[in-house]
Amino acid sequence: MSKSELPPVTVGEPACEAAPVVREPLRPDDAGRIAVVFKALSDPVRLRLLSVIASHAGQEACVCDLSDGFDVGQPTISHHLKVLREAGLLSSERRGSWVYYRVEPAGLRQLSLVLEALEPASVAG
Amino acid sequence: MSKSELPPVTVGEPACEAAPVVREPLRPDDAGRIAVVFKALSDPVRLRLLSVIASHAGQEACVCDLSDGFDVGQPTISHHLKVLREAGLLSSERRGSWVYYRVEPAGLRQLSLVLEALEPASVAG
Repeated sequence: MSKSELPPVTVGEPACEAAPVVREPLRPDDAGRIAVVFKALSDPVRLRLLSVIASHAGQEACVCDLSDGFDVGQPTISHHLKVLREAGLLSSERRGSWVYYRVEPAGLRQLSLVLEALEPASVAG
Repeated sequence: MSKSELPPVTVGEPACEAAPVVREPLRPDDAGRIAVVFKALSDPVRLRLLSVIASHAGQEACVCDLSDGFDVGQPTISHHLKVLREAGLLSSERRGSWVYYRVEPAGLRQLSLVLEALEPASVAG
């Protein structure tokens, strides 16, 4: 064929090797809700507080047990406990003179499910 | 017995009903390392970017597919992708004119393990 019959040359960047979408990504409103819970775990002191509570029998600890080993004061500890509670990762109950904090498994479970959905199907399934 | 023989009254707050510690909590250095990864997931746009990449076959997406549906500009998307990459949740590779991002399952897995360790033994086991 003559030069004038050649197909037009594509100008600019070649097309990418886009892989097809095979599952539904997180919806924006769900992402906003879940990001708040991940944010509660994004501070080392909060993560340790949650872990210390989870390390007690029944996953419950008295607030009086939650300052040993932390280099921050009680007001800071209280603030972090409030953030964890508001994120749905802890619940609290006053009994007598003390407040007890308990891990909320449902709060953790929603994060596990999001992580599973991000993993390859063979691992998550 | 006479009044003078009564045991001394405990002054102040009664002891709490402290539950025993039954497992090892996160060590401070591990908590610091893991908190950085949770922080990468604490932003709704980052969480959606990771989810969009994970929704493609092979859990890999071209950067050219990662701006549709986001109300932020390409520089902001690039910044968020960098944060996810530095946290070990994504890897990237240039092929031809395009950069491709892929989910790193090991990065997600370490978070799943931390969450499992926080759940009640019966659920985690």
